[in-house]
Amino acid sequence: MRVIEGGGVTYPEGFFATGVACGIKQNGKKDLAIVCSEDSAAVAGVFTTNAVKGHSLQVTMEHIKNGYASAVIINSGNANACVGEEGYKNAKEMARYASELLECSPEEILIGSTGVIGVPLNMEAVLTGIDEAVSGMEPDGGHDAVEAIMTTDTIPKEIAVEFEIQGVKVVIGGMAKGSGMIHPNMATMIGIITTDVNISRKLLEKALKDVVKRTFNRISVDGDTSVCDMVLALANGLADNPGIVAEDKDYDEFKKALEFVCTYLARLIAKDGEGATKLIEIIAEGASSEDDAYKVVSAVAKSPLVKTAIFGEDANWGRIITAVGYSGANIDPQKIDINIGDIAVCRNGAAVPFDEEEASKTLARDEIKIYIKLNNGEFSDRMWTCDFSYDYVKINGSYRS
Amino acid sequence: MRVIEGGGVTYPEGFFATGVACGIKQNGKKDLAIVCSEDSAAVAGVFTTNAVKGHSLQVTMEHIKNGYASAVIINSGNANACVGEEGYKNAKEMARYASELLECSPEEILIGSTGVIGVPLNMEAVLTGIDEAVSGMEPDGGHDAVEAIMTTDTIPKEIAVEFEIQGVKVVIGGMAKGSGMIHPNMATMIGIITTDVNISRKLLEKALKDVVKRTFNRISVDGDTSVCDMVLALANGLADNPGIVAEDKDYDEFKKALEFVCTYLARLIAKDGEGATKLIEIIAEGASSEDDAYKVVSAVAKSPLVKTAIFGEDANWGRIITAVGYSGANIDPQKIDINIGDIAVCRNGAAVPFDEEEASKTLARDEIKIYIKLNNGEFSDRMWTCDFSYDYVKINGSYRS
Repeated sequence: MRVIEGGGVTYPEGFFATGVACGIKQNGKKDLAIVCSEDSAAVAGVFTTNAVKGHSLQVTMEHIKNGYASAVIINSGNANACVGEEGYKNAKEMARYASELLECSPEEILIGSTGVIGVPLNMEAVLTGIDEAVSGMEPDGGHDAVEAIMTTDTIPKEIAVEFEIQGVKVVIGGMAKGSGMIHPNMATMIGIITTDVNISRKLLEKALKDVVKRTFNRISVDGDTSVCDMVLALANGLADNPGIVAEDKDYDEFKKALEFVCTYLARLIAKDGEGATKLIEIIAEGASSEDDAYKVVSAVAKSPLVKTAIFGEDANWGRIITAVGYSGANIDPQKIDINIGDIAVCRNGAAVPFDEEEASKTLARDEIKIYIKLNNGEFSDRMWTCDFSYDYVKINGSYRS
Repeated sequence: MRVIEGGGVTYPEGFFATGVACGIKQNGKKDLAIVCSEDSAAVAGVFTTNAVKGHSLQVTMEHIKNGYASAVIINSGNANACVGEEGYKNAKEMARYASELLECSPEEILIGSTGVIGVPLNMEAVLTGIDEAVSGMEPDGGHDAVEAIMTTDTIPKEIAVEFEIQGVKVVIGGMAKGSGMIHPNMATMIGIITTDVNISRKLLEKALKDVVKRTFNRISVDGDTSVCDMVLALANGLADNPGIVAEDKDYDEFKKALEFVCTYLARLIAKDGEGATKLIEIIAEGASSEDDAYKVVSAVAKSPLVKTAIFGEDANWGRIITAVGYSGANIDPQKIDINIGDIAVCRNGAAVPFDEEEASKTLARDEIKIYIKLNNGEFSDRMWTCDFSYDYVKINGSYRS
């Protein structure tokens, strides 16, 4: 497997994309993206578990049921959420309008919206944007598309990898947005994966669900789960491999590459968390169950006290063990070992002397790993988060204004 | 019932207290408090549910089983937590040493410690402090005691109320500390309630548990639950009322006053949350169960996005409905109404137009109420929290240093 330098969603065969500025964002930046497959693509999706769901996301959840999609249209700057029936009608209209231009059925159009909640979409702007996007999409338009889905993101998040399946060269491309309300009033993380692999819809879905659980569902910026979170994978089969139809080694190979792409994008989202200065990876080992391992990494990743301490480059492991303690996981406090990077800070639930200077050096890095050994079983988990800085407060204290 | 101006834990008959500086805090501030009852008092306690428990708290949980206590000794600046067996021995030694001075059994001494986790107590300092405290305690020493339990608290939290029970004038006094890791590596909130009411130990415990659930367990500064949280209530009976031995109107009267005292202290903790500029009260009504009502207020109170928006005085109700959505409560998104103060911002799950200027005025106040009507049942709950400011990050980025 090879990472394609500068690659993105249009690198697999038969994908076109672009991003346009249609006037939703007041600053005149790009705010509407299209990713389109030449042929109808098998599609799979993973959606927010929030009981409140954005209107565009609702429409996509309906449309995806038919299993195939031609295009994904995403606007940023407005979440199209919590505006009542009008919001649903608007999302439906976006799909209908695009389907006419693209000569497909409305159900083959998937819609995403991300931005402020509770403000009706300016449909005149949106429909003009769809016109422009459809007429302007290009086989190297992935960069424009990813720019058009950004909100508080500071860097575009995209990747493409190339590998062989069944003797044929195939490509997986991906783009994502998300910075706050990850776990994100913005309503928030969106990931689009494209591939030219020929794979059955069912296996595409299975692979995506498995991979999302270990990647996009293992990042936390602020513990909030948005009403618009979605990850979509489109596979158009244009690589012309014979087809992945069973959970065989080819499937495994595909899934491995998909996980690489999703891990890359998920880590970037955590690293680009609102106001973040550091990427933090929390690793729990030796849990007595899968669920316990998750509870531990999740509690530590969400703790504002842990996150502010790391922003302050303070090896304050007391906050880590405290979060482990209230996580709800079945643990034995006297068996807990904690390392910050290579530095042992806690053994058997108690402080061990460590070199504060060395700890400061470790914490001054861009990427920090926290290892929590529960010594209580065989299950492990891992989550990415970021530190909690002044800028997080700044960004979120004035988001709407 | 009358609030006694400037009252605190020594206002009920027969209570003595003081606070001394024994050298645990490096800044030379008071760091060891004693609250002592002339006669052995009936005692009840509520303790952290964190699986990791501070050593002093562990000893108090053991000692409280005998049902009676003579004194509570609390040090601040060091949590006596996660230091291994030494921590437990030190807490035991504090109790033993104090019991000799006070001529009671060690089990009648309760110990609390709050401050940094993972650093062994300087026992020389602590024992000298206990000496000074025991010899210096006074019937008006409550103010000194509350100062000696403060860590990042910016204001002392104390109160006393006077009322009549069974024809006799009785008093309930209380003090508390807590500012961060409320819901705090500090290891963190401590509340001491004193009263001269004559009440059975069992009823004291029942009243305390009921009241703590609606007061100290309904505040959240950062969603973290400390390893040292405890609330203790001591009732020495010196008011000489005949005795509360049944759940009758006298019990109800006592409980009402206890709830007033605990509400006052709990609200002060939320208001004095680390870096807080505003007290926020989250009220959920119309939930389909008690648990659902709690899930809603808890999710909203813990959301960094809601808390930063209110710091920014931004009526960003989309973040409120988002938190309601991921709370796990059984809700119907289309039935949700939200008010910020008197201002309706959301009806039936959708935006309603509101006067942004009026909203800004409401949000500029010191105390803000958020009403969430779920219109889905008859249960309600309420939680106090505070906004999330630059100073929260500042305080917690450099707590140990």
